[in-house]
Amino acid sequence: MNSDDFSPDAGLIAPIWAGSPAEAATGDLAFLRALLDAEVALARAQAAEGLIPEGAVKDVMGAADALAREGTRTLALLARSGGNPVIPLVKSLTQRAPDAHLGATSQDIMDTAFMLVAGRVRDTIIADLDRVAVALARLAAAHRDTPMAGRTLTQHAVPTTFGLKAAGWRDLVLDARDRLTAVVLPAQLGGAAGTMAAFIPRVVGRRLLAGFARELGLAEPRLPWHTLRTPVVDLGSALAFTAGALGKMAADVLVLSRTEIAEVAEGTGGGSSALPHKSNPVGATLIAAAARTTPSLLAILYGSLAAEDERPSGAWHAEWSPLRDLLRHAGGSAAHAATLAEGLRVDPGRMRVNLDLTRGMLVAERLSVALTPTLGRREARALMERASHRVIAEGITLRQAILRELAPGDLNITDLDELFDPATYLGSAPALTDRALTRRPAGDHDA
Amino acid sequence: MNSDDFSPDAGLIAPIWAGSPAEAATGDLAFLRALLDAEVALARAQAAEGLIPEGAVKDVMGAADALAREGTRTLALLARSGGNPVIPLVKSLTQRAPDAHLGATSQDIMDTAFMLVAGRVRDTIIADLDRVAVALARLAAAHRDTPMAGRTLTQHAVPTTFGLKAAGWRDLVLDARDRLTAVVLPAQLGGAAGTMAAFIPRVVGRRLLAGFARELGLAEPRLPWHTLRTPVVDLGSALAFTAGALGKMAADVLVLSRTEIAEVAEGTGGGSSALPHKSNPVGATLIAAAARTTPSLLAILYGSLAAEDERPSGAWHAEWSPLRDLLRHAGGSAAHAATLAEGLRVDPGRMRVNLDLTRGMLVAERLSVALTPTLGRREARALMERASHRVIAEGITLRQAILRELAPGDLNITDLDELFDPATYLGSAPALTDRALTRRPAGDHDA
Amino acid sequence: MNSDDFSPDAGLIAPIWAGSPAEAATGDLAFLRALLDAEVALARAQAAEGLIPEGAVKDVMGAADALAREGTRTLALLARSGGNPVIPLVKSLTQRAPDAHLGATSQDIMDTAFMLVAGRVRDTIIADLDRVAVALARLAAAHRDTPMAGRTLTQHAVPTTFGLKAAGWRDLVLDARDRLTAVVLPAQLGGAAGTMAAFIPRVVGRRLLAGFARELGLAEPRLPWHTLRTPVVDLGSALAFTAGALGKMAADVLVLSRTEIAEVAEGTGGGSSALPHKSNPVGATLIAAAARTTPSLLAILYGSLAAEDERPSGAWHAEWSPLRDLLRHAGGSAAHAATLAEGLRVDPGRMRVNLDLTRGMLVAERLSVALTPTLGRREARALMERASHRVIAEGITLRQAILRELAPGDLNITDLDELFDPATYLGSAPALTDRALTRRPAGDHDA
Amino acid sequence: MNSDDFSPDAGLIAPIWAGSPAEAATGDLAFLRALLDAEVALARAQAAEGLIPEGAVKDVMGAADALAREGTRTLALLARSGGNPVIPLVKSLTQRAPDAHLGATSQDIMDTAFMLVAGRVRDTIIADLDRVAVALARLAAAHRDTPMAGRTLTQHAVPTTFGLKAAGWRDLVLDARDRLTAVVLPAQLGGAAGTMAAFIPRVVGRRLLAGFARELGLAEPRLPWHTLRTPVVDLGSALAFTAGALGKMAADVLVLSRTEIAEVAEGTGGGSSALPHKSNPVGATLIAAAARTTPSLLAILYGSLAAEDERPSGAWHAEWSPLRDLLRHAGGSAAHAATLAEGLRVDPGRMRVNLDLTRGMLVAERLSVALTPTLGRREARALMERASHRVIAEGITLRQAILRELAPGDLNITDLDELFDPATYLGSAPALTDRALTRRPAGDHDA
Repeated sequence: MNSDDFSPDAGLIAPIWAGSPAEAATGDLAFLRALLDAEVALARAQAAEGLIPEGAVKDVMGAADALAREGTRTLALLARSGGNPVIPLVKSLTQRAPDAHLGATSQDIMDTAFMLVAGRVRDTIIADLDRVAVALARLAAAHRDTPMAGRTLTQHAVPTTFGLKAAGWRDLVLDARDRLTAVVLPAQLGGAAGTMAAFIPRVVGRRLLAGFARELGLAEPRLPWHTLRTPVVDLGSALAFTAGALGKMAADVLVLSRTEIAEVAEGTGGGSSALPHKSNPVGATLIAAAARTTPSLLAILYGSLAAEDERPSGAWHAEWSPLRDLLRHAGGSAAHAATLAEGLRVDPGRMRVNLDLTRGMLVAERLSVALTPTLGRREARALMERASHRVIAEGITLRQAILRELAPGDLNITDLDELFDPATYLGSAPALTDRALTRRPAGDHDA
Repeated sequence: MNSDDFSPDAGLIAPIWAGSPAEAATGDLAFLRALLDAEVALARAQAAEGLIPEGAVKDVMGAADALAREGTRTLALLARSGGNPVIPLVKSLTQRAPDAHLGATSQDIMDTAFMLVAGRVRDTIIADLDRVAVALARLAAAHRDTPMAGRTLTQHAVPTTFGLKAAGWRDLVLDARDRLTAVVLPAQLGGAAGTMAAFIPRVVGRRLLAGFARELGLAEPRLPWHTLRTPVVDLGSALAFTAGALGKMAADVLVLSRTEIAEVAEGTGGGSSALPHKSNPVGATLIAAAARTTPSLLAILYGSLAAEDERPSGAWHAEWSPLRDLLRHAGGSAAHAATLAEGLRVDPGRMRVNLDLTRGMLVAERLSVALTPTLGRREARALMERASHRVIAEGITLRQAILRELAPGDLNITDLDELFDPATYLGSAPALTDRALTRRPAGDHDA
Repeated sequence: MNSDDFSPDAGLIAPIWAGSPAEAATGDLAFLRALLDAEVALARAQAAEGLIPEGAVKDVMGAADALAREGTRTLALLARSGGNPVIPLVKSLTQRAPDAHLGATSQDIMDTAFMLVAGRVRDTIIADLDRVAVALARLAAAHRDTPMAGRTLTQHAVPTTFGLKAAGWRDLVLDARDRLTAVVLPAQLGGAAGTMAAFIPRVVGRRLLAGFARELGLAEPRLPWHTLRTPVVDLGSALAFTAGALGKMAADVLVLSRTEIAEVAEGTGGGSSALPHKSNPVGATLIAAAARTTPSLLAILYGSLAAEDERPSGAWHAEWSPLRDLLRHAGGSAAHAATLAEGLRVDPGRMRVNLDLTRGMLVAERLSVALTPTLGRREARALMERASHRVIAEGITLRQAILRELAPGDLNITDLDELFDPATYLGSAPALTDRALTRRPAGDHDA
Repeated sequence: MNSDDFSPDAGLIAPIWAGSPAEAATGDLAFLRALLDAEVALARAQAAEGLIPEGAVKDVMGAADALAREGTRTLALLARSGGNPVIPLVKSLTQRAPDAHLGATSQDIMDTAFMLVAGRVRDTIIADLDRVAVALARLAAAHRDTPMAGRTLTQHAVPTTFGLKAAGWRDLVLDARDRLTAVVLPAQLGGAAGTMAAFIPRVVGRRLLAGFARELGLAEPRLPWHTLRTPVVDLGSALAFTAGALGKMAADVLVLSRTEIAEVAEGTGGGSSALPHKSNPVGATLIAAAARTTPSLLAILYGSLAAEDERPSGAWHAEWSPLRDLLRHAGGSAAHAATLAEGLRVDPGRMRVNLDLTRGMLVAERLSVALTPTLGRREARALMERASHRVIAEGITLRQAILRELAPGDLNITDLDELFDPATYLGSAPALTDRALTRRPAGDHDA
């Protein structure tokens, strides 16, 4: 192998997450620090149990500082021969601090570091999701009664409100937040084969695990989880859910931003290299791209559940890349979503214009119900079908078509204007919006 | 299209789930019945609110019975033109019972039917997981102190116990059970665009939704979830987790069943078409196959989170096949796992034999610790490396190698036999097993 | 396991492929027949080499006929104990015809049957793709010069033609056809561990393999491919490509069918259960759903490349479900695509109307080029930016905005009308269309 | 967003590809250079057509050099607002060289750069695959007649040879090589919406495209492929195939390296952080991890086939991360595989020992055939079943069991030793090996 031309990655082709808090928290140096944090915490916990001298902790801390300064590239290259970076890291560490890493296996440190990194990214994601949720609550309240076309299978169906749409987006965001906060992030400390055998005497092993977890602010696991990967897939699921939930909002923004629809626009649309006038929905585009990527990354993690032996040859190593990518995609997506939601421009006037594009067909369902008492359900439906055809064939409005089809007195309603006004056929949309906005995050008290 | 040669699927190439309770609960007829259950419940809930006459319920029930008898094939073919089976089903239904399906959209019925089917499958999976968990608890307790080689990256590392292994499998099974029971299965009733507009007056809409859900034993959703697909991915995640969790057990059984290892065997191994003597770990093989399949199926569901509009053109339709397949794979896997766990034959004698294959290297870690007080950590490690090389190069035992390397008095331990006996180097394995076995399912009180 | 309530699948929730030729060719009975075809061909090839008596072939054929009549359900249930249906099938077969299946392993028969089924489905897919390609060639030629808005990141960018769009769809369809025809479908005949050891003498083994393949119209493999799964992933890739290629057409049809855009419509739009007037792009919806499903199914097949041993425990078994589903999804998608392409209604008038929605901004790029000789590149760009802002801020056309910005003589062009007409800024679209339409399928001579 | 703590990635948690040629060829700086190579080639091709002055080429080259020196981080951050790095890159470029990028769109440059990078990585992968193939050919020839247990569903089945196994691995490697060399890597140059409209006059557009492709050593596409993504999925498929094909070799090495089997070992096994004596199959582990990762990455690319419009909002952006990761995983895997194949240690003695583990059952199939002339097929099978049970129940060899079951004269064979010797029951394994070794790479003449 030849690394002469090596250049580190700086996010050049990763606008989804470049510059996001998640990027900073998942860079190679952040990982190196998390690995060293785990080693220091182990030394501290062992000193507290009297397994190593108090002075050894200082040695480990000093060695860790030195290693952090040496950077990541050398370790990256040394990591190849053992298959993970902890092996060369421990070699360097114990040369300076021989009491480091006692009884641990490389996976103990690697898994623990991943949970530390995940916890830090989670905090930033939740902060961004909270910004999204606040912005969406504001939009939902402001547009509680703003009518717009409800679209199904790409076609106008019946009216809805922009408030209900925004409330729905928010509900997904809160689902994501709840799932993220519910994920348990445990420390890992099982030793070579998960028996904690090198932590002698045995009773100390258990206290050691508790102390190690406490040092790091991580949960204490019931069992070593070298091949019981529930924490990894739970974390991955919550991250993929987050990206997918934001992807729903992005999918709608992309539709509603279309030149022909133009009901919403991003606050700061992106330019084009060729067309200076274009204002592209770039935030939604990048969020949409993240939502296309994360499901398959998650699949890799689920595939690693079936890990053989006490520690597996491949299933574990295959987790690192997709798990870091999930943290970055979900984190980058949340950061873009915060900007998008806070800046989203909504055009109720345009929504009103679009509502009339089908010349009244959006209230066909209401008419069908209104005609039923007089005509009976079957004839009401048949009349609506005939009228619908006239709307399309003759280019007239539904109101005109129905009045031509009806005998006098069939439609026993005084306020015809309201009956044919899509803006008044909103069903429970405002009430559902109100109800949805009462929801609070499940873990709010902890945050 | 030409369907002359059509033949229905009867599980011929699906030994993973053929004949399982999950298969019966997810067949086309089961789906048709669930669709009709939803329509009947809707009629009941509407009659209770006075929206349709009480007598109409009986009409709907009669029509549903008739449709159930007509079978699924005709509906399947008619489903193509509208893209889902509810459209032709409703057409047939309302010809016999005009008050059926009032105000609902086809997705209301389809989503609700899927949740009904999912609930029924879930019950059978939990029943099978409970069988697995009981069998594994028995194995874990029986083999609490049975030593075996702990294997990492395919190599013997340090000893562990079969009890800890079985306890770990059980812990994953309980994780699966907890995740399955935690999934909320809501009814769906939003009408054409999720505004419940056709359920007039509005206040009734909400009561209707509650009544509809109650009739079916499903949860009442906060919002219509036509494009807020949290329930679908939550369900899919729990199912993929189940298959993956069982896949861990299968992966281990496949390793331990190998001709050269032979530490466990399935109670009833499968035959071969060519080799009558072979006893294959067929149950583990099929469970492993399910665990390879489900992660990608789950990815499809996560991909459908980003569903545009009030009801999408494709994202929803793409859910049905993978969601049914997830129910079947998880259900079939659980059924095989119950048989496997209950019948698993464990060979402690063989485990003991295998423990000695590395001529004592499994206790190298313990020796290193034992030598440290006398030699210091660095020299202890160096001596272990020299001894390890002699074990390999000279074909001697670790005990012999170390005694040759040591000066008299270096190893200040009376009971050398115990020190070199892998069966006594089990660390906290028995204690961890005990601790794990105290765990009870989270939702036990509900089951 | 309990199968009392078992009901076979008849495509009820599978409108993507219900009723398609691919469904008929992949049903359980079709698989059973393919398995039996393989057994009969093996007997024929062995009789030709004198390994079994000529009369034995008749016995095998008779037994195969009898088994085909007995149906698939019993075999499906018996398949569980050995993990595949060939084991019980061979047991039944050899009870009636003891010379059947000599020297073969169950995977020989199963793999061969899958290739037979795949070949039959491929023929039907290619036939449907040819219908699509012909229809698209017609559309591309007819609309060679039909201008429409070119859309990028959801926004109007510069004009294009519908001809170029249809030509692009066709090019993908031909790519799919070429990939499908290039897939090599080999017979499988390796015996228990791929050494053909039971085919004695050895020289006969090789002739037997050739004869077996010839009987079935399959290719003769270089090596038994029990764990060299190139044919499976090649086939899967071509099928997923087919579904994805058609998915591009569907994605465009879904956009262009939107109520606000309305530039194309499916010949027979699908109805709605609630809204009789709606005409949904159902064909495109189902094709889009297939394109969302197939990538993950393909991933499962690629995952099975890493199959351990001479025949693996899980990797092989995991192929069956996704490979059948890929055949069905690609086949169903092609059948829907044929209907869609042949019936697609195109509205050039509406395209022309939409072209003007941006008040001339679609030709901004052309103006920038036209102004460069006079103003220089930098000033030309700056002026375009100023003009673009006026278009948006003042609601005027680009023509008006530019004329207000320009000094007299800056725009030294006589035919201003043409300069500002989007319909004349088509670039090489017509020429590219012509070029694309000259392409013929790679395997045309074989078809 | 806050990037204060940003640290670039240097491969710390990526031992699969850290330090590989593929890493160097896919780093951010390599991408930046490829983007600039594309811009320079465009300028050259435009100058050749007289579209820009010859002197402008020098300006573009100078500007490109300057940008390459400025590095990637600033561009990475600027890339977020437009969604890709080409937009800010072009802005910088045209400030120094106003004639740069004329008529192109950012996707033209990005797609072209990806193909350039892919071509460079492909060269390195093929070089490594060639090393693998040579090493495997040597192993296959050397072990043409080395008997070993053929394993199916984890159990010994019948004998095979290590030569056939190595020949099979090589065949997959050549399949990978053929697929890689067959991938067509086209340049991209379509302009804003793929009509090449800004390349005036039209006839020049086509010559320009040819010249642009020629400058870069890329293929000239039939059509702009902004949303016709055949090249991307073809490339991705070949890369995922490569990783999967090597994954088969790794899967076997992992099995055969197990402590209990020990038939092969990596030349340089990896150490452990806790157990200095362990020699882990690290190369195979990392190759296995790559093979677990690539299928899902490929699925993302197939999902992007269904890209809407002339250039899509998300489908394109979602390609970059998985495509780069595929290049890295396939490239890293090939580099590890070269080391593994060249250093693999094979232990024929151990293979011979393991062949006897089943006490002769590996030749049960041969016995069954040998007994048939005397006993008839049915009785021969029945006797074999009885004998098999005795082998297991009584702990005797198959030879002993059969001789106890037989009447004198039933087994009419003089050389009983050979009949019961697994090492002589190799079927066509040596002949198949010879045949496989005659294969040459399809594109050998080009390489």
